[in-house]
Amino acid sequence: MRSIKFGVIGAGRIGRLHAENLAYYVPEAELLWVADVVKEPARETAERLGITNWTTDYREVLADPKVEAVLICTSTDTHAEIIQAAAAAQKDIFCEKPLALDLSEIEKALRAVKKAGVLLQVGFHRRFDPHFRRLKELLEAGEIGKPWLLKITSYDPAPPPISYVKVSGGIFLDMTIHDFDMARFLLGDVEEVYAAGAVLVDPEIGKAGDVDTAVVTLRFKSGALGVITNCRKAIYGHDQRIEVLGEKGGLFAENPLPHATRVANERGYHTAPLHYFFVERYREAYIAEIKAFVEAVQEGKEPPVTGLDGKIPVVIGYAAKKSLLERRPVRLGEIDPSLA
Amino acid sequence: MRSIKFGVIGAGRIGRLHAENLAYYVPEAELLWVADVVKEPARETAERLGITNWTTDYREVLADPKVEAVLICTSTDTHAEIIQAAAAAQKDIFCEKPLALDLSEIEKALRAVKKAGVLLQVGFHRRFDPHFRRLKELLEAGEIGKPWLLKITSYDPAPPPISYVKVSGGIFLDMTIHDFDMARFLLGDVEEVYAAGAVLVDPEIGKAGDVDTAVVTLRFKSGALGVITNCRKAIYGHDQRIEVLGEKGGLFAENPLPHATRVANERGYHTAPLHYFFVERYREAYIAEIKAFVEAVQEGKEPPVTGLDGKIPVVIGYAAKKSLLERRPVRLGEIDPSLA
Amino acid sequence: MRSIKFGVIGAGRIGRLHAENLAYYVPEAELLWVADVVKEPARETAERLGITNWTTDYREVLADPKVEAVLICTSTDTHAEIIQAAAAAQKDIFCEKPLALDLSEIEKALRAVKKAGVLLQVGFHRRFDPHFRRLKELLEAGEIGKPWLLKITSYDPAPPPISYVKVSGGIFLDMTIHDFDMARFLLGDVEEVYAAGAVLVDPEIGKAGDVDTAVVTLRFKSGALGVITNCRKAIYGHDQRIEVLGEKGGLFAENPLPHATRVANERGYHTAPLHYFFVERYREAYIAEIKAFVEAVQEGKEPPVTGLDGKIPVVIGYAAKKSLLERRPVRLGEIDPSLA
Amino acid sequence: MRSIKFGVIGAGRIGRLHAENLAYYVPEAELLWVADVVKEPARETAERLGITNWTTDYREVLADPKVEAVLICTSTDTHAEIIQAAAAAQKDIFCEKPLALDLSEIEKALRAVKKAGVLLQVGFHRRFDPHFRRLKELLEAGEIGKPWLLKITSYDPAPPPISYVKVSGGIFLDMTIHDFDMARFLLGDVEEVYAAGAVLVDPEIGKAGDVDTAVVTLRFKSGALGVITNCRKAIYGHDQRIEVLGEKGGLFAENPLPHATRVANERGYHTAPLHYFFVERYREAYIAEIKAFVEAVQEGKEPPVTGLDGKIPVVIGYAAKKSLLERRPVRLGEIDPSLA
Repeated sequence: MRSIKFGVIGAGRIGRLHAENLAYYVPEAELLWVADVVKEPARETAERLGITNWTTDYREVLADPKVEAVLICTSTDTHAEIIQAAAAAQKDIFCEKPLALDLSEIEKALRAVKKAGVLLQVGFHRRFDPHFRRLKELLEAGEIGKPWLLKITSYDPAPPPISYVKVSGGIFLDMTIHDFDMARFLLGDVEEVYAAGAVLVDPEIGKAGDVDTAVVTLRFKSGALGVITNCRKAIYGHDQRIEVLGEKGGLFAENPLPHATRVANERGYHTAPLHYFFVERYREAYIAEIKAFVEAVQEGKEPPVTGLDGKIPVVIGYAAKKSLLERRPVRLGEIDPSLA
Repeated sequence: MRSIKFGVIGAGRIGRLHAENLAYYVPEAELLWVADVVKEPARETAERLGITNWTTDYREVLADPKVEAVLICTSTDTHAEIIQAAAAAQKDIFCEKPLALDLSEIEKALRAVKKAGVLLQVGFHRRFDPHFRRLKELLEAGEIGKPWLLKITSYDPAPPPISYVKVSGGIFLDMTIHDFDMARFLLGDVEEVYAAGAVLVDPEIGKAGDVDTAVVTLRFKSGALGVITNCRKAIYGHDQRIEVLGEKGGLFAENPLPHATRVANERGYHTAPLHYFFVERYREAYIAEIKAFVEAVQEGKEPPVTGLDGKIPVVIGYAAKKSLLERRPVRLGEIDPSLA
Repeated sequence: MRSIKFGVIGAGRIGRLHAENLAYYVPEAELLWVADVVKEPARETAERLGITNWTTDYREVLADPKVEAVLICTSTDTHAEIIQAAAAAQKDIFCEKPLALDLSEIEKALRAVKKAGVLLQVGFHRRFDPHFRRLKELLEAGEIGKPWLLKITSYDPAPPPISYVKVSGGIFLDMTIHDFDMARFLLGDVEEVYAAGAVLVDPEIGKAGDVDTAVVTLRFKSGALGVITNCRKAIYGHDQRIEVLGEKGGLFAENPLPHATRVANERGYHTAPLHYFFVERYREAYIAEIKAFVEAVQEGKEPPVTGLDGKIPVVIGYAAKKSLLERRPVRLGEIDPSLA
Repeated sequence: MRSIKFGVIGAGRIGRLHAENLAYYVPEAELLWVADVVKEPARETAERLGITNWTTDYREVLADPKVEAVLICTSTDTHAEIIQAAAAAQKDIFCEKPLALDLSEIEKALRAVKKAGVLLQVGFHRRFDPHFRRLKELLEAGEIGKPWLLKITSYDPAPPPISYVKVSGGIFLDMTIHDFDMARFLLGDVEEVYAAGAVLVDPEIGKAGDVDTAVVTLRFKSGALGVITNCRKAIYGHDQRIEVLGEKGGLFAENPLPHATRVANERGYHTAPLHYFFVERYREAYIAEIKAFVEAVQEGKEPPVTGLDGKIPVVIGYAAKKSLLERRPVRLGEIDPSLA
């Protein structure tokens, strides 16, 4: 298969992670450019990975005719604009989640992608986690028959800085969005959301107008129920588990531990702590999602996480926000009539 | 310690279970009477346990001056009446849950108990389960600091007969009531409930006006959140787990397996199935709760599960029913102003 | 079924344990006598269990025509004599392991039992452990086909007093004897033993002429191999595990934990410690073995652990001692030609 | 760090595995040559990895002055010769285990390496497994104090072809050799070996003069004991576990599972099967060992698995063979007086 030539736009934490994965672990990709509005991360990342081209203006990347695809890892408020520019430049696009916080911005970006006929994959990496993938395979193989009840546990080890909380769009658009996507990935369309929230971890999060702990009830079009539990802080690490109860049994994706070595002493048996956070926990998933995108580009086929897959979790997030505010269940159709 | 003389009123499944435990596993108790409105179970149970007295009229038990305490295991609609009669007869009382489906009946019974000055313990056996008890000890020892989020998984292996569903008061008063009690036991007073429900297991349950699958969100007075997931059918057994996330870590009471022997073959590792249902799963808990009651009677002290502990989960159950009906969160004060 | 009337001879730790189990947990048994050469334990045990008869002379127990069966829990050097006296008195006999340290004493006792036509069960309680029992059932059900390799892990939490070590007959006759019995129970006849030993826990054990850590290789008549690992000290509790590898898979009896509740924090996940020692670990097994004996007496059938089952592990123990001394594998026939 | 230029000699299964790892997962290495006595694997491997140079004569690789290091993955009987040629050509050397089956050949090779002053690392990949590494770290950190008893479980999923068994040197030099190395890695010098073996998996293995199941007892210079259990066939996969009991507790490296997703149904809970064999099980270890070699070459420092580390397990293997034959424990000094 021919190697796909890439530009990475945005060299923050997640941009650097993708750039390294492209450079080291995806033989079918070649990284040509690193762009960042700030000079140092762009230069430093390019240098470390042995890439000659770096820039502070992403348009330089788009202008390079050798670049076939871009990875957009900039701050959320720039996603929609860069997607449109990249589409206009006929580049295939991988964009980090969320596509945008404004639904009309998302629509505009999706229209541009459609019009240009380029590919777009959205960065819901958890779909590529081998444990969750195995759960989905078992579900689809009918191992538990019809699914009735989905439970997603999703805790972060520590809250982000308050400055980030303020621009994040709130817990449902920043954190739960991954769980909304996972819910759709596993059980299909969501119809209604009820969200309860509390400020328990840090009162500053409350002052910033957000909650840090949440219980979100989902009702699926299929009639099944779901519940997502979120907390911004679990001192023992990135707790990420999924359960599905169905007519013929249960499926349980437990937390993988970094190693399988235990200590026994007079206080009991002691395992390793969980992977600390997403970089460690989803290492394989991040590589797999890029490989999947490269494969889609190589074959010119629809990527496994589409633009619509990128938009709907944002809609669910707004429904959850509305539910929290109005203290009642909210149907997706109230946010986006096309999903009624 | 002196041995406490008992009468068991009601010789259905749970009555026989308690009678056997009293006879075999509680050396500090002596079983004098077995009563049941139906002759055969009364006679058969008494005979099997080597007890000479049996009757179809519970008043005969209460009339025996040697009897110090009674176990009420009759159908729910008779609990309040028998409690009042037993209190009038100056017997200490252990009564199965729920005390009654009618809150005013419960109040009447509790007043009778108070007036008579007898002891009353309500049959929330899960409080005596060694796994949950250990979780509570760790919680109280401050092992995870302040608790933020409680998760209770509580599935039955198979739904009860539809005839029972119809008189049960519905899933929240029949099944979730145990989880409401556990929530209070672990995290204290509940303030508000939101219940989502679905009919997924058996449409007949829906026709009977009930749901068979539920997600119930709790808000505690402390500010903590909780969620209970219920299903009337988990083909793999009586799935009963509790998790608490707190500021310093997590607590997890997993399902104990009947035995610790695994098989490995080319398809993987295979454990025992779960205990099928409550009789097997809570064997130790049932013995421990009766021992605790006997100890309370011996020492004339307040039993570990009081009349109020018996009443409040019924109130929460009504709040959940109202929530399901009105599709909104309901505060306990709406059901019982004394709990506002 | 009629209730069997018992005398317990020997009121040390294990005698008291059996006496309590008989009194509380074996409804089909009635305890009439407690005997001990020392007055206090006899009197105290009888009193606590509400039994009127106690004595310092076991012959008084044997002289009581109401007594149908005895439990011999005295020191090992008295077992053979008491077995013979009990057999002569036509009592059925349950005797703790080992039957004797002297093989000719064992033979004499077994002949007396045979001549008298009474029943004899030997106290290898681990055969009644539910985890090991399940493993045996799976093995017999052909779950792993022909067994090839047996691995028994058997560690004590702490060594016994040196005074006991000196009269114990050594680790192989005192501790490994249970593992030898388990090996026979699971894989059948043992043909050859090789024992390696070391003094690692306490040099005083070495001075007493014993080892405290051992690796014992077994060759079964079937051709299968086995290995037992022993240590007198595992600070984390009574580690008791069994594995069998066979042509179609593996069986693993893991350590059951006292409870299924875990704590997670930044150092990892933490379970309960193991059961400390045999009293806690084999609680159910001790009750089940007495119930099995009572059933054998009631039905007049051969008990599940026979006199020969009591003798052969002693022979294997002597073969292990000889192997350790002579640094070579030893066949059972070298110790007892009848087993060649 | 400068990139190290490599030639891979031998393009069988393990050679291809190393070549791919070098090409894809070790950024600090550059693969220049692939050699194999058979043309097709050499050509095919080079082509697939985009390497221009391939040959059927390894001397061509050694003659290329750009090549700094070679990986020797040929059949065992050629290792010593190629090591000597590579040393003479001043290449640093990574050689698969065993260095040779003939101890004098090994000595000759080690002398050549020493004389040439080149680096030599031997392919004991398990030392780089993250689970075993963690166990070693905990051991060295004193987590369980002084180690007393080491237990290594090491089963293959299926036996090799009989043609290979015949030239393999036997189970102890082919399979157990890894466990001997692990034993030394964890607990230091071995003093004495006792091996019991049986033919249980396949009678053809017996006809080839080998055993397929073994229990090997080790005595360490420290006084500690060890036991290795081996079987050529475990239908459930590559079972690779290590336990150490010490004065302050136990360490347990369990088998990592391919994924953490379980199914529950009426027959119990079901996990994934084990990794099938070494390629899957030790994927990370193979990459880590090559990275460690590259680092040693870059820094000109002694590799983490030396020539002596390569030789001693062969000596232990011969001691085990002698033990099996002569049915007695054998000291290493009997095989190699320098290890007495």
